Amino acid sequence: MRIGFVGLGAMGRGLAGRLAKAGHEVRAWNRTPPAPHLLGAGIAVAAALSDLATSEVVVSMLAHDDAVRAVFIERGLLQALPAGAIHVNMATISVKLARELGDRHAALGLFYVAAPVLGRPDAAAEGRLQLLVAGPEAAIARLDGLWAILGQHVWRFGDRPESANGAKIASNLALACAIEAMGEAAMLAGAYGVPAGPYLEMLTATLFASPAFRMYGTLIAEDRFEPAGFRLALGLKDVNLALAAGAEVSTPLAFASVLRDQFLDGLAHGEGDHDWSAVVKAGRRHAGRA
Amino acid sequence: MRIGFVGLGAMGRGLAGRLAKAGHEVRAWNRTPPAPHLLGAGIAVAAALSDLATSEVVVSMLAHDDAVRAVFIERGLLQALPAGAIHVNMATISVKLARELGDRHAALGLFYVAAPVLGRPDAAAEGRLQLLVAGPEAAIARLDGLWAILGQHVWRFGDRPESANGAKIASNLALACAIEAMGEAAMLAGAYGVPAGPYLEMLTATLFASPAFRMYGTLIAEDRFEPAGFRLALGLKDVNLALAAGAEVSTPLAFASVLRDQFLDGLAHGEGDHDWSAVVKAGRRHAGRA
Amino acid sequence: MRIGFVGLGAMGRGLAGRLAKAGHEVRAWNRTPPAPHLLGAGIAVAAALSDLATSEVVVSMLAHDDAVRAVFIERGLLQALPAGAIHVNMATISVKLARELGDRHAALGLFYVAAPVLGRPDAAAEGRLQLLVAGPEAAIARLDGLWAILGQHVWRFGDRPESANGAKIASNLALACAIEAMGEAAMLAGAYGVPAGPYLEMLTATLFASPAFRMYGTLIAEDRFEPAGFRLALGLKDVNLALAAGAEVSTPLAFASVLRDQFLDGLAHGEGDHDWSAVVKAGRRHAGRA
Amino acid sequence: MRIGFVGLGAMGRGLAGRLAKAGHEVRAWNRTPPAPHLLGAGIAVAAALSDLATSEVVVSMLAHDDAVRAVFIERGLLQALPAGAIHVNMATISVKLARELGDRHAALGLFYVAAPVLGRPDAAAEGRLQLLVAGPEAAIARLDGLWAILGQHVWRFGDRPESANGAKIASNLALACAIEAMGEAAMLAGAYGVPAGPYLEMLTATLFASPAFRMYGTLIAEDRFEPAGFRLALGLKDVNLALAAGAEVSTPLAFASVLRDQFLDGLAHGEGDHDWSAVVKAGRRHAGRA
Repeated sequence: MRIGFVGLGAMGRGLAGRLAKAGHEVRAWNRTPPAPHLLGAGIAVAAALSDLATSEVVVSMLAHDDAVRAVFIERGLLQALPAGAIHVNMATISVKLARELGDRHAALGLFYVAAPVLGRPDAAAEGRLQLLVAGPEAAIARLDGLWAILGQHVWRFGDRPESANGAKIASNLALACAIEAMGEAAMLAGAYGVPAGPYLEMLTATLFASPAFRMYGTLIAEDRFEPAGFRLALGLKDVNLALAAGAEVSTPLAFASVLRDQFLDGLAHGEGDHDWSAVVKAGRRHAGRA
Repeated sequence: MRIGFVGLGAMGRGLAGRLAKAGHEVRAWNRTPPAPHLLGAGIAVAAALSDLATSEVVVSMLAHDDAVRAVFIERGLLQALPAGAIHVNMATISVKLARELGDRHAALGLFYVAAPVLGRPDAAAEGRLQLLVAGPEAAIARLDGLWAILGQHVWRFGDRPESANGAKIASNLALACAIEAMGEAAMLAGAYGVPAGPYLEMLTATLFASPAFRMYGTLIAEDRFEPAGFRLALGLKDVNLALAAGAEVSTPLAFASVLRDQFLDGLAHGEGDHDWSAVVKAGRRHAGRA
Repeated sequence: MRIGFVGLGAMGRGLAGRLAKAGHEVRAWNRTPPAPHLLGAGIAVAAALSDLATSEVVVSMLAHDDAVRAVFIERGLLQALPAGAIHVNMATISVKLARELGDRHAALGLFYVAAPVLGRPDAAAEGRLQLLVAGPEAAIARLDGLWAILGQHVWRFGDRPESANGAKIASNLALACAIEAMGEAAMLAGAYGVPAGPYLEMLTATLFASPAFRMYGTLIAEDRFEPAGFRLALGLKDVNLALAAGAEVSTPLAFASVLRDQFLDGLAHGEGDHDWSAVVKAGRRHAGRA
Repeated sequence: MRIGFVGLGAMGRGLAGRLAKAGHEVRAWNRTPPAPHLLGAGIAVAAALSDLATSEVVVSMLAHDDAVRAVFIERGLLQALPAGAIHVNMATISVKLARELGDRHAALGLFYVAAPVLGRPDAAAEGRLQLLVAGPEAAIARLDGLWAILGQHVWRFGDRPESANGAKIASNLALACAIEAMGEAAMLAGAYGVPAGPYLEMLTATLFASPAFRMYGTLIAEDRFEPAGFRLALGLKDVNLALAAGAEVSTPLAFASVLRDQFLDGLAHGEGDHDWSAVVKAGRRHAGRA
């Protein structure tokens, strides 16, 4: 397939590389041209956005709403695509923008598929992402050959793109909650003589026995928040996406509100570039245990 | 071994039964005499607490601080035990009482081992409990033959009994947080068209991929809060244990404070006897989604 | 003075009327033309925004950021004003927009004075508003004759317009907190046999002895939330302004976060058009006391 | 009247002094004998609690539940009083103990009147306390001559003593909320260039225009938390009384839960002996503004 790829950050590079390696014709564009050695073989770097105008499929993995809006709406990539083209947006964006994009694509005779992911850059590069997918069924079916390249499992959430984004935002919220929960629990156990290391080893071998929690448990136990796998400032962005999605449907989210304050506390203490699991340090400071 | 067993609720019955089946001489006592058909073979029911006075080891599994205090202190079981006897307390009690019991046992020449557990009655009956153990090392070693009967894995947390209770209380807090997190996430996803069933199936197959979360995810998705595996009123008790343990060491626990309010909300709506995962209904009510 | 007045809602009408009555030449504009009988004598209704272009002073009292942005930026009123003109913005807007407007005015040779107010429509009509004023000192001094017409007292907060908005937003937050506090206190006293009426009469005659609290205490005690003096949906808007202002400077505001959730709860229960003091009903519902 | 007085702390001394000065025969007892120069003229210091056994009225002003329980129940003052005697308890105690004391007095043929107060030691000494009174009507009437000596105004809350305590606990909660509200508002205004001094002067001259708030506003603006008028550790005690009273009737109190965490944060930072208005420093620390 002739695939346009937009957004060559750590996640995007891995995905674009996999598509190229699988034999697809990949033409990729990034706001700032990527260093060639970072790109996998077989990826043509587009000098201009308009070079993507002949794509059958455009896959995008951008950082946030504003970037998506800039590329597809303001700089006109949507208008440039041929009727019938499919846009697969893998970024974590707001439900509001997802809904708007769905409408704009439909109005132009394009197909919009939301496919936000669970997983970090290493999982992206190794095809282990979980794909949360929603959009027009026919379009999703046409991409049958791509899904197995992009990730490990496709979770289908209906034909309204924003459903996949709602599910993704909710999942990041749940994960942030679990991180805070591990932080509070480890701090409490620690106050009674159980060090965070053995405590979180136990917790993530029993109740919290999932690979994600084991990984975060290790970071917390070892106070290893740099370099960031996912920046605390982006964690706040995601909590804000959850709060905004909740507000749109008059739905208070009690834990999310607390998290927002803990993340702000982290920012206020210069930890915006630490891993988002450093959010547990706010609670430690409140207890005079920083 | 000559084992006295105190507390024949759903958890205690399973544990006492396993000890008897393994060939130990088990004499069990309960405040209200248990129905014989509920007890496993080989368990002698003690008519009086004093019948336990010749035990080498007393294992107790009582409901809360007050029950422990009543049996061991006020009704004098501690005084009655022979010097050198070991008391293994598997209940979830406060760190404060654990510390006091440690002192009292030592003063009487007895050994106090805290061994609170992770797991429900079925796990107790099948030897699948996780045992969080702290206390005098010599005593713990003397019980070497018992641990494999009582549970699946022993997590050792040093020689201060209250450390095991701190770890246990922290873990129940973490679990309650995860339940609330799943509830908020499912509610948010649901507001954007993803039903709780498929949403939580995805979440507990990926980020939250642990058996405990899968079980609770199913209860939440199916709104199946009766009969209770663990009562919401007891959930509040456990959150209060966490808050009290935190307060004793001037440690605020932001999520725990929110949980306390959600559990009170559940009580106020007549759900004290529902499963504690029904706590997610408070958030639904706040959003007008009950 | 030749005064242009923008925004003829309940607040604006009172203020415009006072200016006209004091002998100023007032030309007023509203997005939807106001019913003549609602306007005081001596106010000329402008058919077009451009009719305000010869004003020495423009006073505006619009509902929110978007309305201010629409009139002054998008529809070009700023560009139309003569150099040296002063814009007095009495609305509650975000600190971010206040800062932007300050810059835009300066760039055009105009003066921007922020003068948000404390008080309701009756206070506006009777000259009893408290004026929170910040902006270029020379401009504020030139308006010396106007302040006593617009309100009862001028509180000067320096020459950066956003300071006045920060102070105003903070004050609405404080007031919303006091309302929630009265609600929680009255609910608790009520649970022990002290009805809200006598309880709040005592509270607002002692610790909370201010006219504002007496007024809200009466509304709460009498459950009299309609008609709204200030709508709950606008209360949420103001809490969100506080949260946004806090976030911009990495400042968590714990009570504000709780309030946001209580207001959302009110919206979810159809109370967006009730008086904002109806926010206390969320707490009652959580206690099963609605 | 022959009046026994129990508890000669800063509050009690002022009250006992006023009673003596008004011509009553006052015999006073304190756990540790008070320095004579601290006591007003005309107060006889009782060497033993039993010296109070002939009192027609006992007025007590003790620090907390435990002290009340120790003196009246454990050390037997209740049993020693003559039938028909009246006990006026002016301390802030739990609703639970108030209820129990009401029952115990009635069973002994005594009258129990709850009369907790609003006001600090200076107000006690000058007769400016607000008295929140509940208990048997006949007893309250018999004390008609005393009330005007003890305080400025009597607020009657029915015949169940715990009602007065519920009202008092609720009022301290409301006051603590107002302090936190002023703290958050001043911090937010401060972040936009309005210093706490002028900001809180404005706020406590307008929306928060009550003497209590002006006093606390000054402490907050001047960062003057020592010496303490009312200790932060006691503030936490009072918030806990509110939470306990709420929990007893399944009533979550969202602001109270947040306050508990802020007070714990203060304790964790060594501020337990500062004035309780120092609780606002927790929020400053969270924002990196300490």
